Amino acid sequence: MARIVMKFGGTSMAGIERIRHVADRVRREAEDGNQVLVVVSAMAGETDRLVQFCREASALHDPKEYDVVVASGEQVTAGLLAMTLQNMGVNARSFMGWQLVRASGVHGNARVEKVEGAMLDDSLSGGTVAVIPGFQGVSDDGRLATLGRGGSDTSAVAIAAGLNADRCDIYTDVDGVYTTDPRIVPRARKLDAITFEEMLELAGVGAKVLQPRSVGLAMREKLPLRVLSAFEDLPGTRIVAELSGADMERNEIAGIAADRNEARVTLTRIADRPGTVAAVIGPLAEAGILVDMIVHAATQGEQASDLTFTVPRAALGQAVAVLEKARQETGYADLLTDDTVAKVSIVGVGLRSNPQLAATMFDTLAAHTINLLAVTASEIKVSALVAETDLEHAVRVLHTAFGLDAEKAA
Amino acid sequence: MARIVMKFGGTSMAGIERIRHVADRVRREAEDGNQVLVVVSAMAGETDRLVQFCREASALHDPKEYDVVVASGEQVTAGLLAMTLQNMGVNARSFMGWQLVRASGVHGNARVEKVEGAMLDDSLSGGTVAVIPGFQGVSDDGRLATLGRGGSDTSAVAIAAGLNADRCDIYTDVDGVYTTDPRIVPRARKLDAITFEEMLELAGVGAKVLQPRSVGLAMREKLPLRVLSAFEDLPGTRIVAELSGADMERNEIAGIAADRNEARVTLTRIADRPGTVAAVIGPLAEAGILVDMIVHAATQGEQASDLTFTVPRAALGQAVAVLEKARQETGYADLLTDDTVAKVSIVGVGLRSNPQLAATMFDTLAAHTINLLAVTASEIKVSALVAETDLEHAVRVLHTAFGLDAEKAA
Repeated sequence: MARIVMKFGGTSMAGIERIRHVADRVRREAEDGNQVLVVVSAMAGETDRLVQFCREASALHDPKEYDVVVASGEQVTAGLLAMTLQNMGVNARSFMGWQLVRASGVHGNARVEKVEGAMLDDSLSGGTVAVIPGFQGVSDDGRLATLGRGGSDTSAVAIAAGLNADRCDIYTDVDGVYTTDPRIVPRARKLDAITFEEMLELAGVGAKVLQPRSVGLAMREKLPLRVLSAFEDLPGTRIVAELSGADMERNEIAGIAADRNEARVTLTRIADRPGTVAAVIGPLAEAGILVDMIVHAATQGEQASDLTFTVPRAALGQAVAVLEKARQETGYADLLTDDTVAKVSIVGVGLRSNPQLAATMFDTLAAHTINLLAVTASEIKVSALVAETDLEHAVRVLHTAFGLDAEKAA
Repeated sequence: MARIVMKFGGTSMAGIERIRHVADRVRREAEDGNQVLVVVSAMAGETDRLVQFCREASALHDPKEYDVVVASGEQVTAGLLAMTLQNMGVNARSFMGWQLVRASGVHGNARVEKVEGAMLDDSLSGGTVAVIPGFQGVSDDGRLATLGRGGSDTSAVAIAAGLNADRCDIYTDVDGVYTTDPRIVPRARKLDAITFEEMLELAGVGAKVLQPRSVGLAMREKLPLRVLSAFEDLPGTRIVAELSGADMERNEIAGIAADRNEARVTLTRIADRPGTVAAVIGPLAEAGILVDMIVHAATQGEQASDLTFTVPRAALGQAVAVLEKARQETGYADLLTDDTVAKVSIVGVGLRSNPQLAATMFDTLAAHTINLLAVTASEIKVSALVAETDLEHAVRVLHTAFGLDAEKAA
């Protein structure tokens, strides 16, 4: 017997027919003798509908009232799934976020602080399936608080951690985590297993299967996750702390990530003295602009050199405004921008031990005459900034070079 | 400065444009220096949509889960109204039913037990408008509980009573309480004032402006109500404990009620001995069938006589089944039914003191050759059962006879 959290996304909950299908999945886990908690999203489209109401009501709305409005979507699906399960002869009941999930931080983007497990423990021990609306909890001041878009993944992981679940299964409209975006590489392969760190690096660069916050939380809590199709009976992808056993034979590179959400900024002839980089990045951070790749190498013998970095494409205009205001302190000569760049990354725990992998990446791109505009590396990821027109080509040749192509198209 | 509860129905809350209109009304009351609590219904059609989901999920659904699903509609409008008010520069915040309304009794049809006033008191004293979803509270076991359809009226009155409000204004899609149904009598007149008792009698026989439970509660709490148009600036109808001042000059009859929801049952030759009427009514009551008009007069010198009564038309088949089963105990000769009857009633506090009014009713109906199938009277109401085909004619002639016709059509 295991204690399992099952999380279903909005596509899986869109309408009573699909909810019945979800209930059937849940019933099977319960009939196998497992203690089951289910975390649900709102019906697909419902949260957008509610957000739209809020926008119409007031362009700048109070996040506390926003939370009251948008939290209702998951409340509805939780009640409907509980009654559908009961109708199938499964003992089930819903719990509301305000009854058991303590949240903190800002409304509209709160964090799960604590899950009140006692009530759930009793229910599970008595053989009752617990159905819980995702994406919400109750704040210190006793008001509804939501966790930010995609927050149901985080709810599921936090509830699984708080209730000492054996694992947390995320049912979604894809059947697992792929080696890269199958729209770019039709022979992309589904991974049997991936580490938390790899998943975080892939999520951070555009593989939007799971909310990154939920992966980080699962990693801290050492809670195994699975990503599974809500529609087909397939094994999905396990997300684990470390690869072991048969998983060890997996490629050293887990996947190739593509990210078009990049714009490049170059400040020319910045003085080479302590504090100039900080003088650039500081004002951007204060404005809430996330600076990603930073390339700055002082040229020997020169008094000044260029600083290049990337920002999210949508923030480019704001970044330019901030930098123009800070020109005095930073003292650059020219401010150059380019929003036709993109980032390709190789991600894999193998990068820790095998320096040849990064070399293979650069050799492969060079062999295909793909120009590198900037390069950065972290422990398990190497990223190259390329012209956006080169992006898909780069992904394809790297996918082949690292032996990730499946025998036939997905 | 007064403390006011304003309640808005689903038609008034249907969409952001209308919510803005409601907010404008609320703003004016707040700017007049009043402490304002607003109780809101779900957007028109939303509760039906949610109920339909529940029906599809499970024909026989758990009322606790039903409550979770349907309570969401008012949560949405409460949040939206609060943010719309804030956008207009009015201090406002929403409170949820589970934060302050304790309910008891069965889920899906709970009663308001207590309103936790301290939090609201603080908010109102600080000049903040409180917006509260109607129709819901929290049960003893800490779960969401709804009050039954139309329950937002009852929420509003309970909150007004619990917070010692000076009055409770019910904004709706009609502009007040009329002397009769304007679809039957185009010259029906809006009443300036009506007593609680009259309103209850009119509501009980088909004037569906307010949920009867809310009127009964206001009467017990001696809380003045007003029924007002949500769309036009008109004075509406005051509902008061006793008529006074200028209201005393109102007609002795407040209105004429029409009710088609009647079916007649006659049991012939029931033995004239103690307990036979009880033997008939008892099993019907046990089956949850409300027996309305009862006419039974023992004929002098006979050992047996007929018993006639009415039941809701939809319950006629069930009533016949119950009575056939109880034939042994009741010992009637024949069971006759008629579902083409209807009830016309005159309602007014004048009936207490002026016996001529009932006589005028019978004279008027007789003068128009409308046959009386049964007659009952309570303290402030006289009802006549007539053929359904006579109903509208009866309402019109009585409306004229009691001087209720307006100068021109409504």
